[in-house]
This record gives sequence, structure tokens and C-alpha cells, in this order.
Amino acid sequence: MTIDSFLPPHRTLMGPGPSDISPRVLQALSRPTIGHLDPLFIGMMDELKQLLKYAFQTENAFTIAVSAPGSAGMEACFTNLIEPGDKVLVCRNGVFGERMRENVVRAGGVPVVVDDPWGAPVCVEKVAQALEAESDIKLLAFVHAETSTGALSDAKALGALAQKHDVLTIVDAVTSLGGVPLKVDEWQLDAVYSGSQKCLSCVPGLSPLTFSAKAVEKIQSRQTPIRSWFLDQSLVLGYWSGEGKRSYHHTAPVNSLYALHEALLLLKQEGLENAWQRHRDMHEELKSGLEKLGFRFVVEEAHRLPQLNAIYVPEGVDEASIRRQLLEQYNLEIGAGLGDLAGKAWRIGLMGYGARKENIALCLQALQTSLL
Amino acid sequence: MTIDSFLPPHRTLMGPGPSDISPRVLQALSRPTIGHLDPLFIGMMDELKQLLKYAFQTENAFTIAVSAPGSAGMEACFTNLIEPGDKVLVCRNGVFGERMRENVVRAGGVPVVVDDPWGAPVCVEKVAQALEAESDIKLLAFVHAETSTGALSDAKALGALAQKHDVLTIVDAVTSLGGVPLKVDEWQLDAVYSGSQKCLSCVPGLSPLTFSAKAVEKIQSRQTPIRSWFLDQSLVLGYWSGEGKRSYHHTAPVNSLYALHEALLLLKQEGLENAWQRHRDMHEELKSGLEKLGFRFVVEEAHRLPQLNAIYVPEGVDEASIRRQLLEQYNLEIGAGLGDLAGKAWRIGLMGYGARKENIALCLQALQTSLL
Repeated sequence: MTIDSFLPPHRTLMGPGPSDISPRVLQALSRPTIGHLDPLFIGMMDELKQLLKYAFQTENAFTIAVSAPGSAGMEACFTNLIEPGDKVLVCRNGVFGERMRENVVRAGGVPVVVDDPWGAPVCVEKVAQALEAESDIKLLAFVHAETSTGALSDAKALGALAQKHDVLTIVDAVTSLGGVPLKVDEWQLDAVYSGSQKCLSCVPGLSPLTFSAKAVEKIQSRQTPIRSWFLDQSLVLGYWSGEGKRSYHHTAPVNSLYALHEALLLLKQEGLENAWQRHRDMHEELKSGLEKLGFRFVVEEAHRLPQLNAIYVPEGVDEASIRRQLLEQYNLEIGAGLGDLAGKAWRIGLMGYGARKENIALCLQALQTSLL
Repeated sequence: MTIDSFLPPHRTLMGPGPSDISPRVLQALSRPTIGHLDPLFIGMMDELKQLLKYAFQTENAFTIAVSAPGSAGMEACFTNLIEPGDKVLVCRNGVFGERMRENVVRAGGVPVVVDDPWGAPVCVEKVAQALEAESDIKLLAFVHAETSTGALSDAKALGALAQKHDVLTIVDAVTSLGGVPLKVDEWQLDAVYSGSQKCLSCVPGLSPLTFSAKAVEKIQSRQTPIRSWFLDQSLVLGYWSGEGKRSYHHTAPVNSLYALHEALLLLKQEGLENAWQRHRDMHEELKSGLEKLGFRFVVEEAHRLPQLNAIYVPEGVDEASIRRQLLEQYNLEIGAGLGDLAGKAWRIGLMGYGARKENIALCLQALQTSLL
């Protein structure tokens, strides 16, 4: 087999992520690599922390990017905050709630699952009842924006419930960060992780993560060692800490962090509120076009994510062949259904830099032509 | 605080990694992101597997890149191959042997440590004696090329010993892959991990990994679940598998994998044997220059890594101030000592694309001038 340099085409990415990336971010990515202990790089990491705090709307001192994808950020939360035997209330209304449950088990915890239908948000009343019923729950874990269905759950109400019951929260904000309001401090959330490749429109491979003081305290007062060395955040903290000498933990993914810095700077320059509004506006435009074409949404309007639009595939249509056609003829990627929605739905992303009118126009026109 | 785009200077990277990166690799890195389930990307991953097999000199079907740095590749080996209570013989002659021991404990195993002095290779006879003395050892773990000292251990002899005792091997090849001979199949090594940012001269953040059929069998016949979801290689295998439908695990770091593909292609085009010879030749040139300047090496000649040259800091010299001078005046990075060698040694890397005459000339001249 002869192998040549890989020259990817220019796709328009309107799936569930990775999302379209600004040329500014790709340019930052390819800047010259410098050492991960270079004083200039350490300065860049300090700025990155500031920018992450802004995106998360938090003053948490522990606000970093895990050097691995969102699923490692998820695991960092569970493996650091759970001790063997800890009971964890897990809300499951899609693929990522189930992955949370799996993480509880791997970390030695005992999951108590509150199920909601795919496409529905987490039911706050059911969670309240479960917290009343089981007095020894240590953690409440839920997905803010379910990437598998496009449903938005009420993180503010769930955070308040957890506070009331003195339970720590673990929140999956992979698809929400930068796309819809997320206010870590105001909503009193404890451990929140995200991904670089959704509404931040950075390259995939990094997981923004923030821990409240209460979460850090829980980690520091553990009775048993954390089961992972790579994800042990008490070690990682020494690496990301701005105070005094930085202790070596692992080699940071230098260039990917350049890209995240630039992506977060773009968000800061636009302003969080403006970015949220743009996602809503673009969603309205896409929705109106899709409805004209006769599409129905999976999620009810009140709980719909603007940045991830799950729609039912029309009866009798071979969904995979349409996606292939969009990809091959228009260089346009939309997402397949996942889990319970596999074969039944498409997921159209309007994330970060991808939430633009030109993308919507392309998507609507290409869909219409392909379905004729 | 006003934050602007981060514009790093162009450094010459002659520390212990990240190493100098070819412009071809940085160019590949910034190519347009495509979806991680795009058929073209899946084709790229298949090529990447072929290129990794060549670099590792293996036919192992399980040969991939972990979507995280080398320390995650290390943990992937230990967490997948150890079951609670398993006794693991760990060879410790530097920082990374100690990290291996720590990984054994985190994975629930029982470490038995064979110590050798910092700067010395792993003593094969001591390992043989330990394997004779303890009949219930399941795994032998050692570092092929100790990045903290620059010592090369005899992976071939240690692999043969492990075979004789029917013990699986876990081998740290972070700094050896691409720089010195490493023959996974011929030496019958079972689990071998590396890093992207050393002699492959790719951006940091990925960990090439290969498992022998025996290692895969051990994972598949585990009695207890793997403690990590993200690093569970039985799940990752479904993601990297070329056969039939690819199962979603996590979102691959698309652009970093473009870069690794290009870096491995450069290695293939040069030829492994030629790359090994180039590292030896450049080492000879650097060594001769350093000796003229009066430097002494930490490691004896017979066990010295050509790609990582640890030398003693001359008496009375403030080592940190010299490194700062090299960085600020010459944009040249060399490495500090680590662990037992902190403050006492410098580590000069000649890795991958960095192993070039112009780098050596710069380093020797800048050192000489700065030490005057």
C-alpha cells in the first residue's frame, strides 16, 4: 500500500461535532511548538485559565483543560469525586447519561438511575423525589445538553436541588458551553466538564473542566487513592497552578492549547450573551426552513437546544444514503441518530463558528434537493 | 487583563521533548478538520495503523494511537493488563520507572521493584533473579529509554526473559520509538506505548500503542472490569477497527492525527534504519563537541541514548540561569535535570527532526558563549 500525505477536503461540519472551525483557530494551531515548561507557554496557560473562567462563568481556581477528549473530562470528574461505595444519582435521558452511569461503576460507586425518555429533559421532580427517598446520596450527575437527542435540561434547578440536599453535582456541559447559558457559580455547580469541538469550535481533543472549592475539598479529603494517575486532578493542579514552581505532570498538548486559547478569545471578543443569542437566532432560521420542508423535531420546543437540532427522518427515506449524498456531493456533514434514535433521526449542528447563515442556506438547499 | 492572540516565538527545541517539528507536520496539523466518522478520516486512520506498525516493527492488529499524551498510553497498559492483586515486576532506574510503579498501585496490582541507579540501564541479571525468586509474577514492566537520565536498557534481553517465565511485558518506548532500534515482534514484547512528541517529532498529545495477541487475550479474559472507561482498550478497539461498522467511542483528535500521519510518513520515507543511523551520527557529532567543551556524560557510553544526552552541569554554574540565557538570547531550549538529577544535569535532545547538524552547531556555540 502506498501512503501519501493526507489531504482532507473542505467539509461544512453540521453534525454533532467536531464543528466548523474558524480559520483563526486553525492558524493558531499550526504556530511553532514551544516547550510545555517554557515561561511563555506557562503565561499562555494562565491566560487560558482566565478565558475558561469567563466561558464557564466561574471564579473557580481549579479551571483547566484536560489534555484529552470530553470523555476523559467526564472520567476525571467521576474518578476524582467518587470513593468506592459512594452512591451517585445519575440522570439518564440519552447516550451520555448512560455513559455517566458506566463511569460510576468503573470508579467503584453505586449508581441510582433516574430515567427519562430520549428527547425529553431530565425531570426535576423525579430527581427531587429520588433525593428525598435516598438519604445517603453523595453526588448528582446529569447532562446539561444531551448531544444524542438535542434536549436541554434545567441545570439551574438541578443545581439548587443538589445544594438543598448537600450533594455535589457533576455536570456534562460538552455541548452546552458557549451555545446556551451556563453559569457555574450562579447555579452552584461543582464539577463541570466540556469538550473543545462543540460550541467552542476548536479542534477535538481537549476537555475544559472546572471544580468548585467544595469539589476540590472532597478530592483532598479522600480516604482512598484515585484510581487513575493520568486523571488524578490533585496532581494536575500542580501542573496548571500559577503559584510558584510548576510541577511536571505530563507533556501538555501544546498546539491544541494554542487553538483553544484562540477559540476562547473569539468567544470573549464576541461576548457570551451575543454568542448565545446568535445560536438562538440561527436555530430559528434553521427551524423555519426545516418546518417548511415538513420536518418534525425530536425535542419539544421548550427544551430544544439551538445548537443541536434532532429531526425525524421522513418515512421511507434511506437515511444513510442521504447523508452520504450530502457528504459526497455538497461536502456537507450532518449527524446520524445515536442509540435509540439510530436510523430514525438526523442531528444538525449549529455550533460555534458553524452557526452561520451560509451554513443554514447550504444545509436547507442540499437537503431539499437530495430528498426530491 | 487584556488577552490577545498568542504568538509564540520560533524556538529550537533540544530538550527532552517536545522536539523540533518539521514544517510538513505543522502544515498537516492545520488542514481542514473533517468529521471523525467521515469515511475519508476512517481511511486515514487505517493508513495511520499501517504506519504505526512499521514504526513499531510489528504485525499486531491492535496498533493505534491513544487520544492523549504518553502518560495516558502508560496508564492504558497498566489499567487494561492488571487485575487487582496481580504481582508486577517493575524496573526502576529513573522517573518513569517510578511512575510505572505508581500505575501498578493505582490499578490495584502489587508492585515488586527492581532498582538500578539513575543513569544506569536496567540490570538484566537482577531481573532474572527476581523472576526466579517470585513465581507468581504476571507482568514485567520497564522503560526502554529513560527520558530522565538518557539510559538505554536491553529490551531484547528483557523480552526474552519474560518469554522464558511466561510473563507479559509492558514497555515504555516514549523516547525510543524512531530514535533507536525497537523491534516489537522480533523481541516478543507485549504492550508497548510511546509518545508523539519525541523522536517522531509530532505535536505532543498522542500516544502510539501496540498490544500483542497475548496481551489482547489477557484483556479479553479479565475477571474484573477495567477501572477506566476512557482507556478501556476493548472499547477503543471497536473504534479503530477497520472491519465493518466502526463503533463510536470518543471523538478522535482529528487534526493531531493528521500530524501524526505526516510525521510517520516522514519516518517511512526516510526509512527506520536511516533514522536510527542519523540519530547515532548526530549524537557522535554533539558528543565530540561537548567533550571538547569539557562536559561529562551522566550515562556510560555503552548504554547512552543518542537522542537524549544527559550531561553534568559544570561546578559552580547556576544551571537555571544558563538555560534562561539560551532561551532568551538564542531561542534555544535544552532540558533541566529531573528527579535525582534536578539542578545537577542538563538534558540535550536530538530527537527526530531535531537531530540535525544546524541544531548541534547552534547548541555548542550558544553553550560555549554562555558559559564563558
